[in-house]
Amino acid sequence: MTHDNSTHSRSGRSRIEEDRQREEDRARGRGTGAVMRVIVPLQGVVQGRGGVVLGSVIPCALFYFLQLYLKRHRSERAPREEVPPPPRRPSRSPRKPALVSSRALHVIEDENSPYYRGWQAYKENPYDAEHNPDGIIQMGLAENQLMADFMCEVMKAPFNPDQIVLTAGATPAIEMLGFCLADPGNAFLVPSPYYPAFCRDLKWRAGVELVPVPCRSSDNFNVTINALDRAFSQTKKRRLTVRALLISNPSNPVGNILDSATLTMLLEFATEKNIHLVCDEIYAGSVYDSPNFTSIAKVLESGEFDKSRVHIIYGTSKDLCLPGFRVGVIYSYNDKVLKAAQQMSRFCSVSSQTQHLLINMLSDAQFIQQYLSENQRRLRKASLVLTEGLKEAGIKYVKSNAGLYCWVEMGSLMPSYSEKGELNLWDKLLNEAKINVTPGSACYCIEPGWFRICFSTLSCQDMTVALRRIQEFSKRRKRSL
Amino acid sequence: MTHDNSTHSRSGRSRIEEDRQREEDRARGRGTGAVMRVIVPLQGVVQGRGGVVLGSVIPCALFYFLQLYLKRHRSERAPREEVPPPPRRPSRSPRKPALVSSRALHVIEDENSPYYRGWQAYKENPYDAEHNPDGIIQMGLAENQLMADFMCEVMKAPFNPDQIVLTAGATPAIEMLGFCLADPGNAFLVPSPYYPAFCRDLKWRAGVELVPVPCRSSDNFNVTINALDRAFSQTKKRRLTVRALLISNPSNPVGNILDSATLTMLLEFATEKNIHLVCDEIYAGSVYDSPNFTSIAKVLESGEFDKSRVHIIYGTSKDLCLPGFRVGVIYSYNDKVLKAAQQMSRFCSVSSQTQHLLINMLSDAQFIQQYLSENQRRLRKASLVLTEGLKEAGIKYVKSNAGLYCWVEMGSLMPSYSEKGELNLWDKLLNEAKINVTPGSACYCIEPGWFRICFSTLSCQDMTVALRRIQEFSKRRKRSL
Repeated sequence: MTHDNSTHSRSGRSRIEEDRQREEDRARGRGTGAVMRVIVPLQGVVQGRGGVVLGSVIPCALFYFLQLYLKRHRSERAPREEVPPPPRRPSRSPRKPALVSSRALHVIEDENSPYYRGWQAYKENPYDAEHNPDGIIQMGLAENQLMADFMCEVMKAPFNPDQIVLTAGATPAIEMLGFCLADPGNAFLVPSPYYPAFCRDLKWRAGVELVPVPCRSSDNFNVTINALDRAFSQTKKRRLTVRALLISNPSNPVGNILDSATLTMLLEFATEKNIHLVCDEIYAGSVYDSPNFTSIAKVLESGEFDKSRVHIIYGTSKDLCLPGFRVGVIYSYNDKVLKAAQQMSRFCSVSSQTQHLLINMLSDAQFIQQYLSENQRRLRKASLVLTEGLKEAGIKYVKSNAGLYCWVEMGSLMPSYSEKGELNLWDKLLNEAKINVTPGSACYCIEPGWFRICFSTLSCQDMTVALRRIQEFSKRRKRSL
Repeated sequence: MTHDNSTHSRSGRSRIEEDRQREEDRARGRGTGAVMRVIVPLQGVVQGRGGVVLGSVIPCALFYFLQLYLKRHRSERAPREEVPPPPRRPSRSPRKPALVSSRALHVIEDENSPYYRGWQAYKENPYDAEHNPDGIIQMGLAENQLMADFMCEVMKAPFNPDQIVLTAGATPAIEMLGFCLADPGNAFLVPSPYYPAFCRDLKWRAGVELVPVPCRSSDNFNVTINALDRAFSQTKKRRLTVRALLISNPSNPVGNILDSATLTMLLEFATEKNIHLVCDEIYAGSVYDSPNFTSIAKVLESGEFDKSRVHIIYGTSKDLCLPGFRVGVIYSYNDKVLKAAQQMSRFCSVSSQTQHLLINMLSDAQFIQQYLSENQRRLRKASLVLTEGLKEAGIKYVKSNAGLYCWVEMGSLMPSYSEKGELNLWDKLLNEAKINVTPGSACYCIEPGWFRICFSTLSCQDMTVALRRIQEFSKRRKRSL
């Protein structure tokens, strides 16, 4: 009997699944199934005629040695000695606590060395000019407080400085949540099209599989509960454990925002499936038109939700236009995740010099307010120039109100309605029109013909040049097709 | 466009992934198949015509085949399901190329997405004020050049800016080498006592096992070829694949330096075993007394070595006293490692503001020279004050000439010659003498009774207080034991 992952024919699926369960059990070290399948035919072998003694003794001895062998074999294959056993699979019961990864638990536990306990003792002795002048001066708190205040300002929702872990950019923040929420080979569901680099952020080192949840133009690329349910059950059929749903709000690449109803639906879905909900809100302050942005933090305030499964990604790269400063935020409602992430942040600390500058910037609330609104004004203007130009060229796009990009449909310029056709068009845009855009397939979009066009890096003059190139290319292309 | 909810679009699917898929199929799908292919025909054979002969021969044959199967099955076992198959085991042949990890290979290959190819095209269009005014302005090169110059100055050896990858501190640099050189569950040999945090740096997320190579006071804590050989073969017996030897030079916690002969021996050992040699040289500029420091880079110049297995860790935290700035360096002679590390550095980038400041600092060669020599003068002085005080207290230590610490023997103050006795003494030092030091067991030292005492953070006055406390504690302790 040979089958691989590709044999997904509907007929006989249950049998295949049972077999695969058994195989998986064996792969994990439980060899009982194999032993039984050996033993039972052996009884048949010897029960036939004569050789009662041999027929009984040999199989018994065989069974004994096999058990010995398998026992040794099993203990040898403990995947990594020092890692605690993986947590139980999430149950379907809606009120089970959200599980963190076994590696996160390991990191949390790894504080017993006297080396670190010594540090801890040192930490528990805080500086006070009068009462404890030899104590430690805490530098992190001011920044966390200011960052929480800043997030409150941007997202119009409550944030608590104790729930913040700072990282060297949003990229390591996303990776860190991968390490904390998933064990290698676990999956995150991600409504597609999505930010292309999620894949490298989560897969390269944290080993998290991303499973697209396809969204369609007919739904204005909003995620539906049907698509979520389907992706979840298909992923389970692939024997992957889903550990989180990862969304970006405002969405990247589409550039629209998720409303309260959608966010509530996603929260309920995550609770029902006992998975985490990771909300990348890095463009929260880059909403330049109505409707207003709603943070998941705001939705959490409005009802009886299990907060411990919710984690927000933020950073200063987009809304403050400071990508080079490498300042990212994990805002989590889960104590274990906070603790593990705090420990792991040794791998992606923010430069103290940059912390100092940021403290100064964020302390000036008026400056920040003006900065954000001026940034939004410019984004609105640039977006308008781009979309007006696209209209002139007869190119359709999704109406958006956030982010630094526009989600554009150029299917009519493709030689064929396929990923290949899309990549052909992308290649022509790059090498003939000299315009670098992101093809939808790179964002795992299910429909070919969509492209993400960024408008924030160009001056007005450059935007005019770019639009002229697109318009001329479009004309030539339509003639040649 | 094929979108089957699988992890990637087909276009992004690399050869490595296909190999991995095959491996996975084998691990999952063929397990039962193999057993069933043996069992099912057997049933047909014996049910008609049992008998003693068949009843004995067949089970024995079965047992033999099962052993074969299980043996194969074990060797197939991939460390984590979704990780690509591990590369072939390193051969003992000395001229085999040093292998990098399969996840590093995956990262290197993961550049086929048009999203990144678009970026690449953009990168290939460099700025020139006259000939290509619209090109890109490269900010990294100046820093790499300056960092290479700085390392040449500190280490008195040649360094090439093209072999530098910058990271947000030495901590993520070490972790990155863990990701690049090892697959999860692979091992690094580390002469012990060693820097306590190597364990979290390599184990927490990269999943690398550290195997101590015990060094003894009778050898002045220098590593011997016998200890290396023994650790290597014992690790192989544990069925762990050794991928690197990790050393710190100047050594931490002992505070002495490795001479050319030792470094040559380590290089030859690494070549013979076909493993990598990772040299943490972060204290290279903190050598405050003779003999002079010798970088592995210098040794590589002196003979016919396979450079591609050598990687140097450096940073500005120790020699420039800038730990908060988060500037670390991987200097590698291996192109694949450089490429993978460059890609992975997205998770630990240096703040651009800090890069700017560092460029200014490092550009002033005279300042740097003065800074380093003044730092060394102060370290020498502080070390002298500490060791004189220890002598007065009758406490022995290893004569050292580098680093910010002293390696001290206090076995005579322990209630018992054991790790427990050591931790008891450590606890008394912390809670009675109010002195926080690092016990040797936290550094995986094989001999109890050793402690690392740091001297760089204290002023002269504070050092006097600390020494008085140690002396008084020592007197009391000797009386009570």
